[in-house]
Amino acid sequence: MKLLEDGVPLAELSIERIARTAGVGKATIYRRWSGKEELFVDVLRSTEPPDPELPGTSMRDDLIVLLESLRLRGLASRSSAILHNVHVQMKSSPKLWAAYDSTVIAPRRRLGVEILRRGQRNGELRADVDVELANDIFVGPLLVRSVMRPDSDLPEDLAERVVDTLLQGLRPVDSPAS
Amino acid sequence: MKLLEDGVPLAELSIERIARTAGVGKATIYRRWSGKEELFVDVLRSTEPPDPELPGTSMRDDLIVLLESLRLRGLASRSSAILHNVHVQMKSSPKLWAAYDSTVIAPRRRLGVEILRRGQRNGELRADVDVELANDIFVGPLLVRSVMRPDSDLPEDLAERVVDTLLQGLRPVDSPAS
Repeated sequence: MKLLEDGVPLAELSIERIARTAGVGKATIYRRWSGKEELFVDVLRSTEPPDPELPGTSMRDDLIVLLESLRLRGLASRSSAILHNVHVQMKSSPKLWAAYDSTVIAPRRRLGVEILRRGQRNGELRADVDVELANDIFVGPLLVRSVMRPDSDLPEDLAERVVDTLLQGLRPVDSPAS
Repeated sequence: MKLLEDGVPLAELSIERIARTAGVGKATIYRRWSGKEELFVDVLRSTEPPDPELPGTSMRDDLIVLLESLRLRGLASRSSAILHNVHVQMKSSPKLWAAYDSTVIAPRRRLGVEILRRGQRNGELRADVDVELANDIFVGPLLVRSVMRPDSDLPEDLAERVVDTLLQGLRPVDSPAS
């Protein structure tokens, strides 16, 4: 974090430099992390809000908590120039992005899909919906606002509005096709 | 495009270098573009599929065409390493991103919102839905797959499946709350 705060670009970070800055030997680093990518993703994860505790009361409640954690991540990334730059630079390194994907993104996606499967079992979600697609549908609006449109609103009730709008459907209720 | 194909980083592109490569004077460039950002966004836009022709037959049909154009953009960006790198680098320059946003993203968003407003007027979309939020909901899944998950599926029927899933709603049709 100190090196990142000092503005050292990711490409110039090496295990050797990290070890020197931390005042330890390279072997100490390699005992915990197999490489710079893995270490870096851990550092990044430590700066993010922790994974949410799901209430487990309903699919709707769990989804709102999951989306709210994405909203908080978006706000954190906006307020921290370091975090924002690191995210951007990470996307330019396929190896680093793959490490971030397997450590942070994929588990969150599995969590979302699991919530949706429970919803199908208890009748909150249509059984014929592809849960992978449904997961992208629920998280999409949060990611669009956090990642693509850095000046867009992330209001307090956004998670709840997205979930309820999606569950209710977008077609008018009195429509013959609904 | 030649400079980008040669792998020149954006930070090293200057109007002077562009003019020299094109064999023209700097004044010739400045007659059409006020700066390097504006020129660059135009170059980028010229490599993307053109904006879609909307059939205008229904909100559903228009939305499918709009989302299909996002899917094609996603496929184009994946197949072109230049395009992908340029997108990534662009995100690290707030000035360049702002130029891209106002030239490419904002008009596309206005188009989506306009389609949705027409849908509210002709009864295809619930009148109480926030159209800005609804637009993020429709485009979100496409952007998640194109931008965040470079190895995810972008199948041919994705646009149609997203639109129909959203219009139908995610709650089971026989649910008492639906």
